[in-house]
Amino acid sequence: MKSHKIFNDPVYGFIQVPYGTLFDLVEHPFFQRLRRIKQLSLTHYVYPGALHTRFHHALGALHLMRQTIATLRAKDIYISPEESEAVQIAILLHDIGHGPFSHTLEHTLIKVHHEELSLLFMEKLNEEFNGELALAIEIFKGSYHKPFLAQLVSSQLDMDRMDYLNRDSYFTGVSEGVIGYHRIIKMLTVHEGELVVEEKGIYSIERFLTARRLMYWQVYLHKTVLAAELMLIKIMERAKELIRTGHKLPAPSVLSYFLENRNLSSADFHAKRDELLQVFSRLDDTDIAAAVKEWQDNPDPTLSFLARGLANRRLFRLEFSYEPFVEEYVESIRKKVNETPGLPPSASEQLVIEGKETNTAYSASHDEIRILMKSGKVMPMSELSDSTVSPRMFTKYYLCYPKI
Amino acid sequence: MKSHKIFNDPVYGFIQVPYGTLFDLVEHPFFQRLRRIKQLSLTHYVYPGALHTRFHHALGALHLMRQTIATLRAKDIYISPEESEAVQIAILLHDIGHGPFSHTLEHTLIKVHHEELSLLFMEKLNEEFNGELALAIEIFKGSYHKPFLAQLVSSQLDMDRMDYLNRDSYFTGVSEGVIGYHRIIKMLTVHEGELVVEEKGIYSIERFLTARRLMYWQVYLHKTVLAAELMLIKIMERAKELIRTGHKLPAPSVLSYFLENRNLSSADFHAKRDELLQVFSRLDDTDIAAAVKEWQDNPDPTLSFLARGLANRRLFRLEFSYEPFVEEYVESIRKKVNETPGLPPSASEQLVIEGKETNTAYSASHDEIRILMKSGKVMPMSELSDSTVSPRMFTKYYLCYPKI
Amino acid sequence: MKSHKIFNDPVYGFIQVPYGTLFDLVEHPFFQRLRRIKQLSLTHYVYPGALHTRFHHALGALHLMRQTIATLRAKDIYISPEESEAVQIAILLHDIGHGPFSHTLEHTLIKVHHEELSLLFMEKLNEEFNGELALAIEIFKGSYHKPFLAQLVSSQLDMDRMDYLNRDSYFTGVSEGVIGYHRIIKMLTVHEGELVVEEKGIYSIERFLTARRLMYWQVYLHKTVLAAELMLIKIMERAKELIRTGHKLPAPSVLSYFLENRNLSSADFHAKRDELLQVFSRLDDTDIAAAVKEWQDNPDPTLSFLARGLANRRLFRLEFSYEPFVEEYVESIRKKVNETPGLPPSASEQLVIEGKETNTAYSASHDEIRILMKSGKVMPMSELSDSTVSPRMFTKYYLCYPKI
Amino acid sequence: MKSHKIFNDPVYGFIQVPYGTLFDLVEHPFFQRLRRIKQLSLTHYVYPGALHTRFHHALGALHLMRQTIATLRAKDIYISPEESEAVQIAILLHDIGHGPFSHTLEHTLIKVHHEELSLLFMEKLNEEFNGELALAIEIFKGSYHKPFLAQLVSSQLDMDRMDYLNRDSYFTGVSEGVIGYHRIIKMLTVHEGELVVEEKGIYSIERFLTARRLMYWQVYLHKTVLAAELMLIKIMERAKELIRTGHKLPAPSVLSYFLENRNLSSADFHAKRDELLQVFSRLDDTDIAAAVKEWQDNPDPTLSFLARGLANRRLFRLEFSYEPFVEEYVESIRKKVNETPGLPPSASEQLVIEGKETNTAYSASHDEIRILMKSGKVMPMSELSDSTVSPRMFTKYYLCYPKI
Repeated sequence: MKSHKIFNDPVYGFIQVPYGTLFDLVEHPFFQRLRRIKQLSLTHYVYPGALHTRFHHALGALHLMRQTIATLRAKDIYISPEESEAVQIAILLHDIGHGPFSHTLEHTLIKVHHEELSLLFMEKLNEEFNGELALAIEIFKGSYHKPFLAQLVSSQLDMDRMDYLNRDSYFTGVSEGVIGYHRIIKMLTVHEGELVVEEKGIYSIERFLTARRLMYWQVYLHKTVLAAELMLIKIMERAKELIRTGHKLPAPSVLSYFLENRNLSSADFHAKRDELLQVFSRLDDTDIAAAVKEWQDNPDPTLSFLARGLANRRLFRLEFSYEPFVEEYVESIRKKVNETPGLPPSASEQLVIEGKETNTAYSASHDEIRILMKSGKVMPMSELSDSTVSPRMFTKYYLCYPKI
Repeated sequence: MKSHKIFNDPVYGFIQVPYGTLFDLVEHPFFQRLRRIKQLSLTHYVYPGALHTRFHHALGALHLMRQTIATLRAKDIYISPEESEAVQIAILLHDIGHGPFSHTLEHTLIKVHHEELSLLFMEKLNEEFNGELALAIEIFKGSYHKPFLAQLVSSQLDMDRMDYLNRDSYFTGVSEGVIGYHRIIKMLTVHEGELVVEEKGIYSIERFLTARRLMYWQVYLHKTVLAAELMLIKIMERAKELIRTGHKLPAPSVLSYFLENRNLSSADFHAKRDELLQVFSRLDDTDIAAAVKEWQDNPDPTLSFLARGLANRRLFRLEFSYEPFVEEYVESIRKKVNETPGLPPSASEQLVIEGKETNTAYSASHDEIRILMKSGKVMPMSELSDSTVSPRMFTKYYLCYPKI
Repeated sequence: MKSHKIFNDPVYGFIQVPYGTLFDLVEHPFFQRLRRIKQLSLTHYVYPGALHTRFHHALGALHLMRQTIATLRAKDIYISPEESEAVQIAILLHDIGHGPFSHTLEHTLIKVHHEELSLLFMEKLNEEFNGELALAIEIFKGSYHKPFLAQLVSSQLDMDRMDYLNRDSYFTGVSEGVIGYHRIIKMLTVHEGELVVEEKGIYSIERFLTARRLMYWQVYLHKTVLAAELMLIKIMERAKELIRTGHKLPAPSVLSYFLENRNLSSADFHAKRDELLQVFSRLDDTDIAAAVKEWQDNPDPTLSFLARGLANRRLFRLEFSYEPFVEEYVESIRKKVNETPGLPPSASEQLVIEGKETNTAYSASHDEIRILMKSGKVMPMSELSDSTVSPRMFTKYYLCYPKI
Repeated sequence: MKSHKIFNDPVYGFIQVPYGTLFDLVEHPFFQRLRRIKQLSLTHYVYPGALHTRFHHALGALHLMRQTIATLRAKDIYISPEESEAVQIAILLHDIGHGPFSHTLEHTLIKVHHEELSLLFMEKLNEEFNGELALAIEIFKGSYHKPFLAQLVSSQLDMDRMDYLNRDSYFTGVSEGVIGYHRIIKMLTVHEGELVVEEKGIYSIERFLTARRLMYWQVYLHKTVLAAELMLIKIMERAKELIRTGHKLPAPSVLSYFLENRNLSSADFHAKRDELLQVFSRLDDTDIAAAVKEWQDNPDPTLSFLARGLANRRLFRLEFSYEPFVEEYVESIRKKVNETPGLPPSASEQLVIEGKETNTAYSASHDEIRILMKSGKVMPMSELSDSTVSPRMFTKYYLCYPKI
């Protein structure tokens, strides 16, 4: 009798999922749905290989968690069988609350943070699985008495970050994100209940932090990707507005549900949990993509302009600046947009987008990576490295508008 | 002034596309649409990384073509600038006629082979581009007077095969498909107008053929993949049947078009080329995926059974056999299916599927790879190798049915 | 307390060696000496990266053995802790008897096969380690009652072959040798005490066999490598002859020992085991390389001609032929060599070398890889595959001589 | 007629060397000798794969140079055919003056810096090649009127550094050193005659600098490697001292030459260039390795103690400290060493070694990497990055002594 199912993964070779609760969770429609949610939203418009999904990422993070548990146990750190399974469940489901296009549409379709939704899904699943997820939920919420278990799920050095850097590098082909995860995992240990890194691992940690920071600017906040994502947000906002004002828009029924029931809040999700989770779990990237294509011919000029642009990759221009944009400059752009033939005279309200992004790859202020020195002392990473691991905060302003 | 656009590609690092006709073709909505057509249909149900698209593959094949042209020219084989661009266009567009889910639905939605559609698209584009694709079309059709150019686009050793083996290996993680494409390209040359391989390349060619054959059984004809694809075909057939008999089915409008206008033929596409290409070019994987999800609650029990199974990955069982299945055995399966609660008494007509697959990775009969011996003689690969490169034909029968 | 030492390995990432007997064996001077014996002799003259050593290979084979043991145990195949350690020791030491330049000089310096020397070293170490190698020796000799353990050490599908294909591919850069070792190991199991492969592993096995066969011709029997190795053999033979006839040759003392005590046989090694092993264990590639350089100015024209050629990579020409060479042709070469200014009139006796090589990558005759079919039957690989895995024997004749 | 020779390289796939002067230089015994000089000295004691040579590195740097030339020319930067060949020659020969074990023995055997020797070799070769290296020498010396050519050979971002990071990563398996060299090369350009990097390349440059800095501590200054290298230096110093005081030491004759003619200086090399280069060019790693083994039984207890330790990898302990070591502590170590049975009472003079190492990976003070901003302005890297690329100087003190 085989004890586990094997998944193929080009990043790690093979991923083993033990039969039992873990495998049953993978098989659940709530989890299978993650197959239709891309990890990196519209990044594939710049890195065409970046089509990998939350499903694959969750399995990858599980794989790293299993390696880490084995490593810690080999260092005589006690993790009971129940804790081991629970922390695996927690990492497997940590992103289960993500909606279509992940972060891009996070606050556009509904007003609930994905982590809160993940917790709601876990609680619903806990009922279906007769309480077998109780300990996982405790760890996920950070209320379990062994903090290192929660830190493996969510911290500056968790399995989530470690997998996504590997995986995003692999599928984008940006070697800058490759991290020595083997080496990092081997250096992890536990000190007074907290996750720490052995001293000789500091260079690998530095590399990990550099990789993460660079991936931010090179991939996650790539200006063309950001332009595409802003267009998608504008499309959804416009669609909601059109429906609010009585227009009809063809769309898959689950998407229509959220366009019509605007701004569902955390309170709504707690009040009607089962119904809303059911509908939400039917919604994914394919509905959005199909709708955007459908709306290319919509009579509303703003919606169709945006939809045609996104579907055929006629993307907006996006300018970055270290300073806020000068009002006169923005005004001149708005004017040009408003005067564009075929667009309504107030088009710039929808189509000229200002904002800012901050590189928050690593912040020293709280939740710092801790190093266990050979002397036995624990030091925060930022006080150790000969590089500066906590770079000064860094904000870029952007201005995004049609190429006209 | 930059002379070419660079695309990121994890397989080859960077892909250069020269500005001008080639880049303009890449930008065309007909080509951008390939971003939404996966190279390997439903293979990602078994290899979760296999989400790469026809778009990426076409760029990859272009990249190899450019390397090959440079290699041949370095061997003093004359290729004019016009021929060079034309053969690049031909490989770039060789798959532009693929519809959603590529081969899977090839004869289900419309009755036209994808190569014929590719040619129709090229002819349409040739008009838009004022005849700049004329030579590419000639090469694509095999009517140009230098056969080696057509062979680079389509033969046992073309850039299409070379890219897809590399790419499918990379994204599935099946190392069995990795080929030494650098080495193979370096060994290509032209002899009496035909593409040949230098003698010292025979081991690389053998490896290429082995890789291709093994990828067939390990990936392309993987039984779980095949089961999923058969389910998708059955879903579409059922949807067409329901519409034919007067039912209404929610679906994106472009999909509805092809469900309602059943069995559009080659003649139809020639008669109403522009209109049909326009609609067809709006159709892709996302429409199918969104529709399948929508149909999970359809009142037709066969359709909803199939749709729920595919959407949630409750796949049919598929058995392979080297012999045709015994009729009694098939009958016993049919009986069980027909008696399944919730399914109609004739469910087995839709849900029990028989067929066969043949490993056609390499056939010695025609179009053989030719080796240029040091002696100056050209020999077909099959007469040379100390392995058998033309394995006996190999057929596997399959029987596919719900796990009940 | 750490339980194992970690070695860095670019092929597998990290290799763990448990503290205790295994680690102590690695630390032993007999084993450390393998750091100075290249795995692939003079192959680096063609593949400059191929400088990896028997030391690294032995660790790599150990690593695969540990993975295999874990896999088999996960399939409920009982392997006791003692057996596990013994089979690891056996694979670690399987090549410890190799002398400088491995196979190249195997019968030139002494007349004992390297496997016999490995056994002598193991017996000597067994005394030093108070009998802790007894079971390993039994397995190595094939006399232990569980044949699959010996088969993991030495068979058509042993850890030796699996590591060297991976490793030789990595360091030569010849991707043709890459095998899916992860997949193969996962498919291994035991049936009636013998090592077998699960049916679904046959494509990986085929790939493994193809890889091995192609590596033979592309790397192991590359004609330039062969030419260099023949030159080295001729140098050593000439040196021995000069010493036999009373000349003095400067050389490291351990090399002088074997040049003076010519043709030490198996019987000699058994008679004076400790002394001979002691001297032999001091001899490695560096002595040979230093001596060859030293002999470039030797008054003997044949020796200095060969030494200068090898040191400065002025290699002989080597011709391959599927037929024996015609005597007239060989004679004409000999004549030219004998008439070369600066060479003695009988130079061709040393400098024109004839021989043949046979591709023995896989032979179906005995010791075949066995497949465990889903039906429970065991079949030899050659009766199964749709390829021909046991290619007809293949001999190439060679003629090697100075480029003059 | 082939226009270039192809070398196999696992790092870049294939390396092309044009026939003519470049290929003839590769064939020259001066260059072939680099096949016997390891790039990383004794690093293979910690990273067993790190056996790659200066020969391979020089070819790799040539390969990158050729890619860079092509990239620059594609940006309309004029490089004449003569300049192109000269800068290729300069990079090919930049390390030709390295002696055995490269930097380790750089000032132990002779008192001349390797760059000065490289220049002497180039001048000697220039005579043999009838002046064909004149322009290469001018570039190498930095006196040519286009500074960017010299900067490609030697600067903070030269082809030397770019190749060795790639290559050292590949052969050690330390992924921390992998750099996106493709991307960096694509970002290089020339501004007012100087090598600069396009603005959008800054993240790749940061990554390059981080990689380099981390490789310093993780590989180049690894404490076990440093311990081994210090032992080798001590062995050579002891050998020279023994010979100076009239002892006889067996050694290959070229090594004896430099042990006897102690402290040959720059002036000596200029005075007797041809003779000294001839002898020096015969000396390499194999002579040192063979001698060390030979000296294991030397009657001098210090020499044999060191030689046995190095040959059998019984390495000294090395402690790092951010502060100088306290004198009392060092004294206590010395005492223990002096009292060790079998060692002379003053053994600590040879065997207790103090020193310091500084991480000089990148210094902002001079020769900074320059970024060409989109605005057209050129800025030094250190004023740009949101990281600190010019970390504060960083010194580690070490104390190295036998494990007793």
